[in-house]
Amino acid sequence: MPVDGAAAARVVLTLDGELHDPNQPLLHADDLAAVRGDGAFETLLVRKGRACVVEDHLARLANSARLLDLPAPDLGEWRAAIEMAAQEWGTAQEGVLRLVLTRGREQGGAPTAYLTVSPMSDRVDRVRREGVSAITLERGFSIDLAATAPWQLLGAKTLSYATNMAALRYAHTQGADEVIFVSAEGNVLEGPRSSVVIWLDGTFITPPAEHGILAGTTQRGLFRVARERGIECAYRPVRPADLIAAEGVWMLSSATLVARVHTLNGLALATSPVDRDLHDMVEAAVQPISAG
Amino acid sequence: MPVDGAAAARVVLTLDGELHDPNQPLLHADDLAAVRGDGAFETLLVRKGRACVVEDHLARLANSARLLDLPAPDLGEWRAAIEMAAQEWGTAQEGVLRLVLTRGREQGGAPTAYLTVSPMSDRVDRVRREGVSAITLERGFSIDLAATAPWQLLGAKTLSYATNMAALRYAHTQGADEVIFVSAEGNVLEGPRSSVVIWLDGTFITPPAEHGILAGTTQRGLFRVARERGIECAYRPVRPADLIAAEGVWMLSSATLVARVHTLNGLALATSPVDRDLHDMVEAAVQPISAG
Repeated sequence: MPVDGAAAARVVLTLDGELHDPNQPLLHADDLAAVRGDGAFETLLVRKGRACVVEDHLARLANSARLLDLPAPDLGEWRAAIEMAAQEWGTAQEGVLRLVLTRGREQGGAPTAYLTVSPMSDRVDRVRREGVSAITLERGFSIDLAATAPWQLLGAKTLSYATNMAALRYAHTQGADEVIFVSAEGNVLEGPRSSVVIWLDGTFITPPAEHGILAGTTQRGLFRVARERGIECAYRPVRPADLIAAEGVWMLSSATLVARVHTLNGLALATSPVDRDLHDMVEAAVQPISAG
Repeated sequence: MPVDGAAAARVVLTLDGELHDPNQPLLHADDLAAVRGDGAFETLLVRKGRACVVEDHLARLANSARLLDLPAPDLGEWRAAIEMAAQEWGTAQEGVLRLVLTRGREQGGAPTAYLTVSPMSDRVDRVRREGVSAITLERGFSIDLAATAPWQLLGAKTLSYATNMAALRYAHTQGADEVIFVSAEGNVLEGPRSSVVIWLDGTFITPPAEHGILAGTTQRGLFRVARERGIECAYRPVRPADLIAAEGVWMLSSATLVARVHTLNGLALATSPVDRDLHDMVEAAVQPISAG
C-alpha cells in the first residue's frame, strides 16, 4: 500500500513540546488536514541527532502558511520542537522529520501543529546509490498560472498531495520510479516530491519558481555551495529536450537528497561528469551547523 | 477561521460500527489523509434521521476509491454505518454526514474509514433562501486533461481540497460567496463544492463530467426528476457568456441542495422563471426512500 516502503513514525511531538505515543491517535476526525488536505508541511533530514537545513524549511513553512491564510507560525517554537524531536530520534540512524501545520478542526479554533520522525523508507539507500528511472507526465497547468491566479497555492507545500501520489503510482505501473512534471505548454516543472536540476553548458539549471513550482530547499543549498565554488547556476526555463541534451539530470529532495535520473521515458541517460561533485556539494549544503 | 461557519462533528463512527467521542482524537499523526490528503470523501444530507441519496454517494465513493487505487469499499458495511450514524444523529434537525475513506497509515495496512455527522453550517439557511454571489476563477487546466492524463484524479472526490478552499477564501476577499471555476480555454466547470446548472433555451444544462469535473449527485437527481416530468436536460459545454444569457444559474450540492446565483462577477442575474420548479424537483430528488 505505501507508495515507497515508508515506515511508521516513531517520534510524535506536538508543537507545545509534548511527546505522544505514535500508536495512539492524535488528530480529531474533523481536523481540516484530514478532511480537506488543508494545511502545510515540511520534510527534513535528521542526521546524527540534528535536523538539516532548518532555517530554509522554517522560512518555507512560514511562506506556505502565508499563502494559505494561516496564522504566522512562531518559528522560535518550531525551532525548539525540531531540536527536541531530532534529539528524541537520536543519533543511531538517519530519520525523516515532518512538520505538519493544519487549519485545525472544522469548527475553528487553533491550528493543529505537530512533528513526526520516521525511519528512512527502504527505497532511499537504493535511490541514492543507483538513481531512478523517471517518466514525464503532464501536470495540467500553464507556467503562467501562478501569476494569473495568485490565489492558487502553487508556491505552498500543502497537505493536498493526492495528485502527486497518484502520479507516482502511475509511474510505478509504467515500470518507472519517478515523475518529472511538465506544464501545459511543455515546460519541465518539478517532481511530485523533488526539484529537477540539470547540468547543461557548464551550468546547473533548474526551472524558476515563478513557473508555479515549489522552491526546493536542497536545490537552493546546491546552488549556494556551487556558486561559492565558482560554478554557474541559473533559474531558466527547461524543456523536455533539455533533459536529453543535458550532461546530467537529478531530482533533489530533503530526505533522499540526490536521485540521479538514469533513465528518462525509457531512454538511458549517461552518468554526468559532475555527478560526484554534485553529490559532494549537496552533502556540504545540508551539513547540520554545529550548535552555536 | 472556518471558511463558512462549520460546526463541530457531534457523531463520529468508524466503519466497524463503533461510536467515538467527537472530542477525542481518532486519527494517527501519520494517517495519509492528514499528511497527503490521500483518500476520498462524500457529503450527505441527513433529514428526519435518514441519509439522502445514499446509493449515488456510495457509487461515487466506490468510483473515487477505484481512481485512487484504494481497495473497493464494502458498500454493505458503509450502508449499515450510514444508517447507524443518521439514527444516532436523530430527527430533531438536519445534519451533514461525511464519509471518509483514507489510504490508512503511512506504513501501510488497512484503509481508515469513518463517518461524522455535524450540524448544518450557519450559512446554509441564508444561502438556500437568498442564493449566492459568485465570481469566476481560472481552475488552471484544460477540459482535455481528464482524457489526456487519466492518472490525474479529476473524477475522484479526494481529500485534497486545499485549492478548492483557497478559491473560496479568495472569493470572500472579493466580497463574493462562491466560485465558478473555468478551464484554461474558458469553459465553465463547477464550484469548489458544487455543480453548476443553468436554464437556457428551455433546457437544464450542466457541463459534461468528461471535462474533468465531479459527477454531481444533486445535479443528477435534478436531471432524473426533471426528465420524468418531461423537461429537457443536457450535458453540454458551457461558456461564461452562457451564464449571462441563461435564465437561471444554480450551484447544486448535497448539503446546501440549491444555491441560486443572484450575482455573477458583480452583475445581478434575474431570478429564473423556473427557480421554484427547480427547488421542488431537487427536493423530490433527495427524499429519503422509506425503509424497504
